[in-house]
Amino acid sequence: MIQLFQEELQVLNVGLASFGEAIAGAGGQVTQIAWTPPAQGDRAVADALANLVNRPEIEAANRKAFAAYLAAQPVLEGIGVAGEALPGMTGRMILHAGPPIAWERMCGPMQGAIVGAILYEGWASDPEAARDLAASGKIVLEPCHHHAAVGPMAGVTSPSMPVWIVRDATHGHRVFCQFNEGLGKALRFGANGRDVIDRLRWMARDLAPVLAAALATLGPVEIKPLMAQALHMGDEVHNRNAAATGLLLKRLVPAMLKSGSARDAVAAAVEFIAGNDHFFLNVSMAACKAMMDAARGVPHSSMLTAMARNGVEFGIRMSGTGDRWFTAPAPVVDGLYFAGYSIADAAPDLGDSAITETAGLGGFAMAAAPAIVKFVGGTADDARANSERMGHIALGQNPAFTLPALNFAGTPAGIDARKVVDTGILPIVNTGIAHKAPGIGQIGAGITQAPLACFTQAVLALAEESGGDL
Amino acid sequence: MIQLFQEELQVLNVGLASFGEAIAGAGGQVTQIAWTPPAQGDRAVADALANLVNRPEIEAANRKAFAAYLAAQPVLEGIGVAGEALPGMTGRMILHAGPPIAWERMCGPMQGAIVGAILYEGWASDPEAARDLAASGKIVLEPCHHHAAVGPMAGVTSPSMPVWIVRDATHGHRVFCQFNEGLGKALRFGANGRDVIDRLRWMARDLAPVLAAALATLGPVEIKPLMAQALHMGDEVHNRNAAATGLLLKRLVPAMLKSGSARDAVAAAVEFIAGNDHFFLNVSMAACKAMMDAARGVPHSSMLTAMARNGVEFGIRMSGTGDRWFTAPAPVVDGLYFAGYSIADAAPDLGDSAITETAGLGGFAMAAAPAIVKFVGGTADDARANSERMGHIALGQNPAFTLPALNFAGTPAGIDARKVVDTGILPIVNTGIAHKAPGIGQIGAGITQAPLACFTQAVLALAEESGGDL
Repeated sequence: MIQLFQEELQVLNVGLASFGEAIAGAGGQVTQIAWTPPAQGDRAVADALANLVNRPEIEAANRKAFAAYLAAQPVLEGIGVAGEALPGMTGRMILHAGPPIAWERMCGPMQGAIVGAILYEGWASDPEAARDLAASGKIVLEPCHHHAAVGPMAGVTSPSMPVWIVRDATHGHRVFCQFNEGLGKALRFGANGRDVIDRLRWMARDLAPVLAAALATLGPVEIKPLMAQALHMGDEVHNRNAAATGLLLKRLVPAMLKSGSARDAVAAAVEFIAGNDHFFLNVSMAACKAMMDAARGVPHSSMLTAMARNGVEFGIRMSGTGDRWFTAPAPVVDGLYFAGYSIADAAPDLGDSAITETAGLGGFAMAAAPAIVKFVGGTADDARANSERMGHIALGQNPAFTLPALNFAGTPAGIDARKVVDTGILPIVNTGIAHKAPGIGQIGAGITQAPLACFTQAVLALAEESGGDL
Repeated sequence: MIQLFQEELQVLNVGLASFGEAIAGAGGQVTQIAWTPPAQGDRAVADALANLVNRPEIEAANRKAFAAYLAAQPVLEGIGVAGEALPGMTGRMILHAGPPIAWERMCGPMQGAIVGAILYEGWASDPEAARDLAASGKIVLEPCHHHAAVGPMAGVTSPSMPVWIVRDATHGHRVFCQFNEGLGKALRFGANGRDVIDRLRWMARDLAPVLAAALATLGPVEIKPLMAQALHMGDEVHNRNAAATGLLLKRLVPAMLKSGSARDAVAAAVEFIAGNDHFFLNVSMAACKAMMDAARGVPHSSMLTAMARNGVEFGIRMSGTGDRWFTAPAPVVDGLYFAGYSIADAAPDLGDSAITETAGLGGFAMAAAPAIVKFVGGTADDARANSERMGHIALGQNPAFTLPALNFAGTPAGIDARKVVDTGILPIVNTGIAHKAPGIGQIGAGITQAPLACFTQAVLALAEESGGDL
């Protein structure tokens, strides 16, 4: 004891930094270890977590779910029309992003997009009538995720919209996503003016047939190799899709020219795609959902199969609890705002695009895309650190998606709800930001986090369901 | 003195590591500083160097040359034919890469490529007759660099080959480069079979008119923004041009479709370009030469304006010494060889493509393209370290070309011959490797260094020329 205090004091301080600061102030050498109690000290959650850790059945279930995710091989199969292609989409139905939500509770941009979709479908002749129709309950409003689909931001998908058809060639299931409209005034950000509706009509009438003919000529296009290449070209295939869009276009153009499409239609299609660096996003999202759907419904698995936001709530789904949503209030994104806008103008976090993070891409693959963090004031080191930090809540790495800046390590993938609650490390999500009022559109972009409350509920539910038979 | 030896021994060891190892062996704490005497201890060179350091005239000349390099704005202006477009290219003349060299001394792949060019021009009907004609002295053989041109690997350019026309919109001069043929059997690697000649004919007959019509429709295309984007997408625009090729194609396709070109010709052109990730290399090289030519002929400047290899000698040109070449034996590249080949099969370093490194790209921008170092066994850290090391021999950074992995710092650019001799840090060059025998083609790729002897000669020459009037 006496000897201890004669030596120089070297302290590891775990948790509250103020203890360490006192020692450092007195001249001691302190190494601070960041630590918070699991589940932020919530006893019931901590007990549930303790019950779920190192259980062979859960480990086996997670291995199975993760293997299915890795084995998925999404291919771009063709183009369809939502009302015909999507399972269970019948009559006057409009799909939206995130977990279920009633019209009255929807955020401004989602209501704006639904008004736009009603006008596009010709179910009402002006925005006011469209709004009344939506509020009347005569339009069925359901999540994209309930119909094998995903949509960025508002995610609004109506029956006559064209959709990408993505099939998991390994497991056979299909996933759908509408086309990306480009930046600025767009339905997915809640804009619904004449120009927005006209572009949607052009996409259905002119763009869709050109793409359909090209894909018919080309045959199924494997999407993972394309995404993997894009990760080596500065994309994280969520908020940056410049390389992936170019790679897809490079595959499509020769097929467009060989197919029977009119020269002018091909030229217009190429110009539209070449002018929209986000065009690939919707293909990326469908591919990610196809991978995650492969991992759905494995009893006892604590692996996430979806993260999605409706602009009011952030929702997650977990493999072992099937189609159940665990929700919490959606955060408002403290990102980079366009001139004239601030966080006060922002709708809370919105869109199904967090399916990319669920699949180990987007924020999880940030090391591949330092331009994304630079956009919100970070550095290349921050980008690498983001991907490394996500490794702590992931079941493994995906060798199909490698990160050059981390010496070609695989992206961290397979979010384990237990690990999120245990470490307090929240999944990060790269996202666009919509104005909170309907009809305005995008006002910024940034990086946000999934709320912890989704994960504590998931852990409690898994403990309850698994409690008896483990 | 007594006190010194009572304290713990902490040593900085400069230069020879063995001194430090002895101290470390005896328990001392040693920090090793890498250092070699300037000019590897050569007294005459060291004197010349001492005479050139901190001379206001040289610093001013370098500022002027560097500023001209930065101000250059190369634009893709159109397509020409070598024999009509290149200054001074008349009659039966064939251009080659690197500094001047006679037929007898040329390496195998360069002779192979010249034989191919003679067959392509129809000046001989079989390879043997072509070889005799080349050896007869009736064909004038001169460097591309003497005719405002550059060419990758053998760089062989004959009168009826189509060329890119690149103009420096700031200073007005023009630079030329033939088209890239793709990988595998290609003239630039010394192959000259039927397929190689047929492809060259197709490029002149079919590809060139489609590109010419597209560029006429599009108007001049600024090349630097395109290269800058590619640096953010994993290219260093020398050995990796996948993103840049895609970006160029994205610009060209809509213009191809709008121009009068036949649909089949457009389809064939797009398919050829989309299938050759190196297609942009020749545009990159012409743009780099345009930037470096802007910096030519500034009296007293020690800034390099060209590095080029003919497969026997490595040559450099310096702004202050005009068109004079300083040469040394070209190194053999210890790179990654295709299956069945080794360094014993390799021709020494070859090609004008080191103009990209001269312009701060290629090996100097390696931090942008970790895939290049991975290809030869390195890591992403090595890639960053390469770009950082090149900063020690550069006059500055180019803010037009930023490197994401170095937090968007500009590429090190403007190689100062004095700094190379002073530090012993040699410019690195990313390169392809050709078989040493004519007619075979590419057998590998790797990373090499410019020989120090070129730089010591340049420093001696600058000291001699500048001696009187400084």
